[in-house]
Amino acid sequence: MEQINNIQVVPCTSSNYLRPFRVHYNQNGTKKSWDFMQTHDSVSVLIFNTTSHCFILVKQFRPAVYMSEWERSKPKPLQPSEEESAEATPAEPKVPEEDKAGETSEGTSSHQPPASAGVTYELCAGLVDKPNLSLEEIARQEVLEECGYDVPVTKLRKITSYRSGVGVTGSKQTMFYAEVSNENRVGEGGGKPQEGELIEVVKVPLHEAMTFAFDESIPKTMGVIFSFIWFHSNMSPKYKISTNV
Amino acid sequence: MEQINNIQVVPCTSSNYLRPFRVHYNQNGTKKSWDFMQTHDSVSVLIFNTTSHCFILVKQFRPAVYMSEWERSKPKPLQPSEEESAEATPAEPKVPEEDKAGETSEGTSSHQPPASAGVTYELCAGLVDKPNLSLEEIARQEVLEECGYDVPVTKLRKITSYRSGVGVTGSKQTMFYAEVSNENRVGEGGGKPQEGELIEVVKVPLHEAMTFAFDESIPKTMGVIFSFIWFHSNMSPKYKISTNV
Repeated sequence: MEQINNIQVVPCTSSNYLRPFRVHYNQNGTKKSWDFMQTHDSVSVLIFNTTSHCFILVKQFRPAVYMSEWERSKPKPLQPSEEESAEATPAEPKVPEEDKAGETSEGTSSHQPPASAGVTYELCAGLVDKPNLSLEEIARQEVLEECGYDVPVTKLRKITSYRSGVGVTGSKQTMFYAEVSNENRVGEGGGKPQEGELIEVVKVPLHEAMTFAFDESIPKTMGVIFSFIWFHSNMSPKYKISTNV
Repeated sequence: MEQINNIQVVPCTSSNYLRPFRVHYNQNGTKKSWDFMQTHDSVSVLIFNTTSHCFILVKQFRPAVYMSEWERSKPKPLQPSEEESAEATPAEPKVPEEDKAGETSEGTSSHQPPASAGVTYELCAGLVDKPNLSLEEIARQEVLEECGYDVPVTKLRKITSYRSGVGVTGSKQTMFYAEVSNENRVGEGGGKPQEGELIEVVKVPLHEAMTFAFDESIPKTMGVIFSFIWFHSNMSPKYKISTNV
């Protein structure tokens, strides 16, 4: 599907996207410090097409997932512990060694996993970065931009909210459920190519959903699994769904 | 519960915990870049005590969650858009303004939320940072250290795995289910105080679990909600559970 090559990894000294802060505080009289990052809250939407009885997901190449898979696929030689290594060379990138060293940037290393290793299935989702819009309005925009369905705000049902990345960002995610029909389909979706988004819209038939959710060979977020099982628990009186969890 | 004060936030120029990298790559012939962070994979464990019919969770103060709540609680005056602001002053911390400016570090600002705003309920969990141990062995250690239960590795059942923080870290999380009884309880749990951990072990009775899961006034991770609903779907033949989702 995707062709990924010419991979180069460099330390990132200044980023508009990842900006670490350190907070010093006293907890019950004990001095502590914690490094964290400020991010936007986010919304995600479980979309169910009542015409085709399919869930509508998005699928995209995620560089962070790809790099994580690459690192995991590397043989682990005898090394100093991660902690020691981190303390000794805090600014030294550890992935991927072959590109870092500049030996090759052609992506031809035997270590390099296929592009599919970085492609994940996710709920339609977006950042809460427009102060004048409600969560529902932001969710609606994402459904339109990413998946091509025009769904009224009133048809968005909040499933719940929770804290994400509690160790690093602590942002709040709110999950919605939206029922759409083929009549709501007004475009192709796919995100905003001008912003570098390259999103594929994917249908998962209802009767395959639970098998899909628990198939670990299909990389996906917990949001997909949780929302499918939520649908199974809450919508089963309305829609038949396979129960082979 | 927690006393949090003397809060100071500073930009974090070098961290052993948050180390941003930038990857340059070609996707289908188009040059792209992405900022990401390398983190460890992790495990989490849904613990069910068959003696007391309670789930065993952990509860702790999370600085990243607290700072995120603080930022969210601040009034949003008319400002340049987040993007413009980020580009203009990429190294400038945005939270919390009053501490950043050094006006007061006493934590007495009217903006400062109560410590409880940063306390989250989570599954027992830990990083996969010991190359010689299996995921099950790491999960077992965390159950012992954080919750005080000694559960044999053979009693850990894998629920599933998924990708976490796909935009930033892309790490892999594996979730286990462990049934324990009061007989497995060998200690108090609470984590490693010498490593700064201050973890409270919390019981959630089975019959309150689904209400707890969907009560948004109780800050928690998606893992808690997902695992409770998974239990509801998979263990209901074995254990009675309230269905008021």
